[in-house]
Amino acid sequence: MRTLIAQTITKIGETITVKGWVNSRRDHGKIVFIDLRDRSGVIQIVFGEEGKTLKPEYVVSITGLIKARPEKLVNKNIPTGGVEMEGQKIEIISQAEELPFDMSKENLEVELPTLLDYRSLTLRHPKVQAIFKVQEVVIDAFRKALKSKDFTEFQAPSIISSAPEGGAEIFEVKYFDYKTYLAQSPQLYKSLLVSIFERVFSVNKVFRAEPSVTTRHLTEVVSLDAEFGFIEDWTEVKDMAEFTIKFILNEVKERCQKELSMFGVEVPEVSEKIPFLKLREAQQIIFERTGRDCRQEKDPSPEDEREICKWSKEKYGSDLVFITHYPTKYRPFYTYPDDADPEYNQGFDLIGKGVEWMTGGRRIHDYKTLLEHVKTWGISEKNIELYLQAYRYGMPPLGGFAFGAERITMHILNLKNIREASLFPRDMERVDFALKTLQPDKKPSN
Amino acid sequence: MRTLIAQTITKIGETITVKGWVNSRRDHGKIVFIDLRDRSGVIQIVFGEEGKTLKPEYVVSITGLIKARPEKLVNKNIPTGGVEMEGQKIEIISQAEELPFDMSKENLEVELPTLLDYRSLTLRHPKVQAIFKVQEVVIDAFRKALKSKDFTEFQAPSIISSAPEGGAEIFEVKYFDYKTYLAQSPQLYKSLLVSIFERVFSVNKVFRAEPSVTTRHLTEVVSLDAEFGFIEDWTEVKDMAEFTIKFILNEVKERCQKELSMFGVEVPEVSEKIPFLKLREAQQIIFERTGRDCRQEKDPSPEDEREICKWSKEKYGSDLVFITHYPTKYRPFYTYPDDADPEYNQGFDLIGKGVEWMTGGRRIHDYKTLLEHVKTWGISEKNIELYLQAYRYGMPPLGGFAFGAERITMHILNLKNIREASLFPRDMERVDFALKTLQPDKKPSN
Repeated sequence: MRTLIAQTITKIGETITVKGWVNSRRDHGKIVFIDLRDRSGVIQIVFGEEGKTLKPEYVVSITGLIKARPEKLVNKNIPTGGVEMEGQKIEIISQAEELPFDMSKENLEVELPTLLDYRSLTLRHPKVQAIFKVQEVVIDAFRKALKSKDFTEFQAPSIISSAPEGGAEIFEVKYFDYKTYLAQSPQLYKSLLVSIFERVFSVNKVFRAEPSVTTRHLTEVVSLDAEFGFIEDWTEVKDMAEFTIKFILNEVKERCQKELSMFGVEVPEVSEKIPFLKLREAQQIIFERTGRDCRQEKDPSPEDEREICKWSKEKYGSDLVFITHYPTKYRPFYTYPDDADPEYNQGFDLIGKGVEWMTGGRRIHDYKTLLEHVKTWGISEKNIELYLQAYRYGMPPLGGFAFGAERITMHILNLKNIREASLFPRDMERVDFALKTLQPDKKPSN
Repeated sequence: MRTLIAQTITKIGETITVKGWVNSRRDHGKIVFIDLRDRSGVIQIVFGEEGKTLKPEYVVSITGLIKARPEKLVNKNIPTGGVEMEGQKIEIISQAEELPFDMSKENLEVELPTLLDYRSLTLRHPKVQAIFKVQEVVIDAFRKALKSKDFTEFQAPSIISSAPEGGAEIFEVKYFDYKTYLAQSPQLYKSLLVSIFERVFSVNKVFRAEPSVTTRHLTEVVSLDAEFGFIEDWTEVKDMAEFTIKFILNEVKERCQKELSMFGVEVPEVSEKIPFLKLREAQQIIFERTGRDCRQEKDPSPEDEREICKWSKEKYGSDLVFITHYPTKYRPFYTYPDDADPEYNQGFDLIGKGVEWMTGGRRIHDYKTLLEHVKTWGISEKNIELYLQAYRYGMPPLGGFAFGAERITMHILNLKNIREASLFPRDMERVDFALKTLQPDKKPSN
């Protein structure tokens, strides 16, 4: 009968069996200390010479007596630090080859290519695991937040028949006798589903053939998407986005204290109400604060985003800030032009700690207006027929928002590279391993 | 201020505003009856001549007085059947074009191509919507079941670098200068993650280039996958699969009574313990019952599956039955040969109402045995290096199971075609619309 390591603190004086991986072994003459790791935690086990049969990452079953540690030997850093096991019986379940690097340190000191080339091993490191615990909570909290608001979860399609908005950065799939593509966003599907379920969300894959290797881009991303109808105006969309992000940050704060402290971070500070301002207003503020004149730009630069976050932090104590009302003509055909000034749209980006966290806005719901935009934007009606169909047969005012699970995980934990926030990151050069080593002689179909 | 239709039963005597779609209009001389539909239900609204401005699927806001219906006019089929609204004010939010078919009947009487060609419209039909309510509950219950057993949710990758087990039915993706593929299963990833999290599950897309158009196959499927380690033997895997499927059926029963009754079905009957028997035992029973000798076949035929379900129902009162121990050499390289008779493996299929619901089994965890199988099966080690890595560095005994969300939805609701159980079904000939009409002049890259 196996006992999980986290439960050993309630078993003092009992002889029990634990199972897991040898996290580390420390020999002190004839005494051998093993740290055993399972999904619930780590425990120190004390052996004599027989402990020397164990090596890092061996999978073992160990029976022994749980004892309270003397006060001065308590390890306050781990929940099981008050106990240790006196090892009595070892059963080796699976051996492990010698490790290519030391896995026992608090920080896994390997470079990014090694981190990824040995992904099946490096993910075992408690601090690497912690990233995905946080990500699981982010995704779970996203679902909880929207379910509490009566949203229906749907499964967005990955294979699409055309690149709806053109777009060079789209992957082509050889589909029997046809060409299909991988969805860059579930935008059109989630919008059309508003005409069915009114309020929808999805946790789905999106694919971007981003032809550059940056610290912020992956080719395959977990997108968290929401969309809902019968809004009165765009601020309802912004408020729902705000509710969702606060809900997520709060859940991470409550459920991931251990993980946050491993990274020495706290969840971003958010003011009671996340401040929001129009792009042109933000640019004016930046101009006044720095003298840098970005007032005609269509998007904030990374420098601008950092500056406006500094302003938000100083003025409102908020690490997060919404920038709204971007120039309509540079945004997708479905974004809703502001009634007061149609040159700018009713869209928003949520900026946190100097980078974009989330994007959203109101969409056009009137069929005729939509058709006009489709023409102006030069979109093929045939390519978006299913989307147009929804509007042709009656669509309420709607809006929504989206963000990437990897990116938000990265920002919460202050990771340097988004690849660290993906279990199996894919980029232009790597799919598990570097493609040039995997496929030295392969060229794609053309 | 909008009131949801489901809440109108608590508003008798009040003047309120409801918003939604015109589900139907019935004119009785100068009196017009409107059924208005929102995400929460349907309500009857009574108008004079002014109701004639409304047409099916118009999106409207209607203000009026909620009244109790006289006893003999109560509609017992819907929760709001005890009330109706006396319409006072109509605001048309969006108009709809004339519908191509009648959407107001209890059953949507259209053929499959029409059902799919008008997907943005047909999904609005309450009985079509109901399918996806059930599917949402299936997926939600899957997550709940496994979370209650301490499983970690992970996001499985869709793009993979090679076809790990060869496989003709795999989609190729043009990936910058390389060839990549769409995952047919997260099997190798979920297994390797057992060495990280011990117990994992995922809700993910899998892709099969199934070159035939059947009622049971889609090219893009929502797969529900689970895998866990430190098992004592294969029956633990079967038992976890059984726990999960029972949990799901129970949640559907509790949360989807309305939807089940729309389809005139009940959740399948399951005996206290789902019966299980080896393939060869099943074949012997079939031989004895029918005289049909299938005792040397490597898989049960559809006819066999129906017969064994009949047997299970008669003998144990169970619509579900496990068939176990398939011939090892016809199964994937990672399946675990039975110790007593290695010609057969420790795998299982769950058969329900005569068709396969779920598949699972124990996997090899010993690195050397795995390598031998890899050689015997003729798999390229390079193609599964990340998987092998996990075993090289210590893997506990493990197993798992998988099933498709669409297929289980189809079986629960007794749908005739799996396309009905996918919001946006993709098959060899269709991605939203028939590919031959979308891409008459397009041929794929070669």
